[in-house]
Amino acid sequence: MMARLLIIGGSDAGISAALRAREVNPAWEVTVVVADRYPNYSICGLPFWLGGEIPDWRDLAHRKAEDIEALGIDLLLGHTARTIDPTAKTARVVDEAGRSKHIPYDSLVFGTGAVPARPPVEGLEQEGVFFLRMMGDGFALRDYLAEQSPASAVVVGGGYIGLEMAEALIHRGLRVTLVEHLPSVLATVDPPLGALVREGLNGHGANVVTGVAVASIDRQGHHLVVAGPEGFQAKAELVLVATGVRPNADLAIAAGVETGQWGAIRVSRAMETNVPHVYAAGDCVETHDRLMERNAYVPLGSTAHKQGRVAGENAVGGQATFGGTLGTQVVKVFEMVAGRTGLRDDKAREAGFDPLTVQLEAWDHKVYYPGAHKLHVRVTGDRQTGRLLGAQIVGHRTAEVSKRVDVFATALFNQMTVRALSDVDLSYTPPLSTPWDAVQVAAQAWMKCGREGTLET
Amino acid sequence: MMARLLIIGGSDAGISAALRAREVNPAWEVTVVVADRYPNYSICGLPFWLGGEIPDWRDLAHRKAEDIEALGIDLLLGHTARTIDPTAKTARVVDEAGRSKHIPYDSLVFGTGAVPARPPVEGLEQEGVFFLRMMGDGFALRDYLAEQSPASAVVVGGGYIGLEMAEALIHRGLRVTLVEHLPSVLATVDPPLGALVREGLNGHGANVVTGVAVASIDRQGHHLVVAGPEGFQAKAELVLVATGVRPNADLAIAAGVETGQWGAIRVSRAMETNVPHVYAAGDCVETHDRLMERNAYVPLGSTAHKQGRVAGENAVGGQATFGGTLGTQVVKVFEMVAGRTGLRDDKAREAGFDPLTVQLEAWDHKVYYPGAHKLHVRVTGDRQTGRLLGAQIVGHRTAEVSKRVDVFATALFNQMTVRALSDVDLSYTPPLSTPWDAVQVAAQAWMKCGREGTLET
Repeated sequence: MMARLLIIGGSDAGISAALRAREVNPAWEVTVVVADRYPNYSICGLPFWLGGEIPDWRDLAHRKAEDIEALGIDLLLGHTARTIDPTAKTARVVDEAGRSKHIPYDSLVFGTGAVPARPPVEGLEQEGVFFLRMMGDGFALRDYLAEQSPASAVVVGGGYIGLEMAEALIHRGLRVTLVEHLPSVLATVDPPLGALVREGLNGHGANVVTGVAVASIDRQGHHLVVAGPEGFQAKAELVLVATGVRPNADLAIAAGVETGQWGAIRVSRAMETNVPHVYAAGDCVETHDRLMERNAYVPLGSTAHKQGRVAGENAVGGQATFGGTLGTQVVKVFEMVAGRTGLRDDKAREAGFDPLTVQLEAWDHKVYYPGAHKLHVRVTGDRQTGRLLGAQIVGHRTAEVSKRVDVFATALFNQMTVRALSDVDLSYTPPLSTPWDAVQVAAQAWMKCGREGTLET
Repeated sequence: MMARLLIIGGSDAGISAALRAREVNPAWEVTVVVADRYPNYSICGLPFWLGGEIPDWRDLAHRKAEDIEALGIDLLLGHTARTIDPTAKTARVVDEAGRSKHIPYDSLVFGTGAVPARPPVEGLEQEGVFFLRMMGDGFALRDYLAEQSPASAVVVGGGYIGLEMAEALIHRGLRVTLVEHLPSVLATVDPPLGALVREGLNGHGANVVTGVAVASIDRQGHHLVVAGPEGFQAKAELVLVATGVRPNADLAIAAGVETGQWGAIRVSRAMETNVPHVYAAGDCVETHDRLMERNAYVPLGSTAHKQGRVAGENAVGGQATFGGTLGTQVVKVFEMVAGRTGLRDDKAREAGFDPLTVQLEAWDHKVYYPGAHKLHVRVTGDRQTGRLLGAQIVGHRTAEVSKRVDVFATALFNQMTVRALSDVDLSYTPPLSTPWDAVQVAAQAWMKCGREGTLET
């Protein structure tokens, strides 16, 4: 009999594990238990579909089910894993009709993902209030939009999903109020850059409110009233709550798998849990932070893919190691892109560095060539060693922000100094860059500052 | 008396040296001898100005003369250095009126650049035949275009300038024939990618002829006839010869400075020549090739800036080291961008590697989001060690080709393996990337091939 890898969860981490397992060791049978009917869907694409930029939700599939099955992967769609017995090495799964069966495994991967975090707000459970995570959430929201034609929405949460959904709803013609409890939207970048994103939202008619923690949502006739402290009130026909996620680790915990401080499954860099033959990957696990050299909780699709690949390889006898997160993230909001990688001052200090952050503007390409845009760049480095610690960029969507962030990320992966980054032979042609690329203009500004201490810190 | 740094040449290398010298050691006086009236002009921008995308040639200045002077740099415009006496440490310069003077120096930087290579073609010296290098060349060509209104052009040479000028002349409404002596245009990428660039040119009406070495240019009435072997003939009213450059090192040679096999000034990684207190940088020098670990001749603006910065720093007492070229280059041709970095098979073999090159297509961003384009990527790595050796990408100009090349370049700078590149935490959002960025899709395709040997080599 063939050895079996059983994977619980058919989203990014689970399918990535399955694909890699088949690739490195075709002698193993691979079975994926998928709770819904949408294996390998790009849930990151939901806001663009809901906003109307993507006509057909089926296009959100990274791969079709039949393409996955053609690679020798068994998909158990509409099945939910109820219990794992790590001693007997079996999983009990239940189908949509409630029929139960036991599946033996030799290796198991948890890719159970995350569920929306529920903020301490009264009135979350009522018609017109939505969370957005899985395909099913998307369908529910689409139906409400189609049937109720709401003219206005309140988005609670100014992170990636909140910003993307604010844009999506504005595309659909709704009046949108976005409420963020922190002083700035997009808290993954520093406030001066968050302010630029806010300006961009305002420019498209969004009403952005920061520093307000929503306390309650109440229905008044056709409207929902979102209320907060000091008399804050916003009325709308639709409320979307996008205040982050928490790991979905209950099944693993019940099987004796240890979790960490965020309630996420604790894994080694080989993506092994504490339970023999049990691996985990994706939004349900703690992520190795390459710069902090400790674990963190960073639920992102790109990270889930990487972890899944490692888990899949190791679950069938491989020796892969997860490279770790650098905290790289990017979001497009209307014409604007905001990206970041590495550590900001607070985390850098926690990690024992002596950070200096410098902000500057640099053109994305030679200003004489049409279409040049200014990039707003913040670079963080260690004053003592000159080591690059992080970077943040906000700029126009045509200004190649995200791949510039990736140049910084690649430098961070290799523990480069800021000075060395300025030495790299990067590409130049006037329509696409400057002779010193913006990342190097930023590196040089940091160096100047680091020595002379004159620019903004 | 202040120590004086004298710089011969006011283009990228020279001005970069001057700026850096003032920055690191304001105790030095800095004088730049500039042969024409256009210090710090971006000659890389000439094709875009001639093509009409940039209305005013003055905008090509990286910096205005007064901005350079405001930083405490003396510009001797319209002055040509005639002789250098390295024993007396003086330079004799002549102004436009023929007046001569001696300028003493403590350090000297040669930034004398390059001149167009003159291919072995009869009839180069006649009306209607142009080279394009300095601002003066650009003015001559502009005047001819304005006064003669040629309806057709032959561009000799299918490298960067030839391609950009073909595009520029097509923008102006000319019928263009491009003649390249090699079998493929854009010889800095492998033929399968060169073929894509050729298709792009054809799509805009260019007549592209490869494998033809032009032998002569003859006037027949209003036309010039460009002729080659086997009866090749192309008629046009304008001929632009863009067959590369050669270092302009005569002045340095006369001063006892050693040159290498390309006739370029031989320099250390500190940009020192063999003559004490004499540095050199830019298109007149040999370039340290970081991957080949030997010198090469790579005349590029981005490299000139980097070398100039090092020369300027060291000339006033600094300790900088040139990071070396990775062979990174990029060009935009109509809607297409072609970029490359690192070694291809031939050079990799020369350097003792066992190269494998894999070509594949990968989407620039999630195909479900509007505007996705396929990137054509070639990755080269060493079969024995898995080390990344090089990469080439051709894709749409909105597909962030050049910054993806820069991710590869940053990986090459750090001697990463192909596998490690696949581990880097790069940015992801559906409108801008895929969960595994195209550079990682390419890395993984290479890994698969390297082991299984099934894909194209």
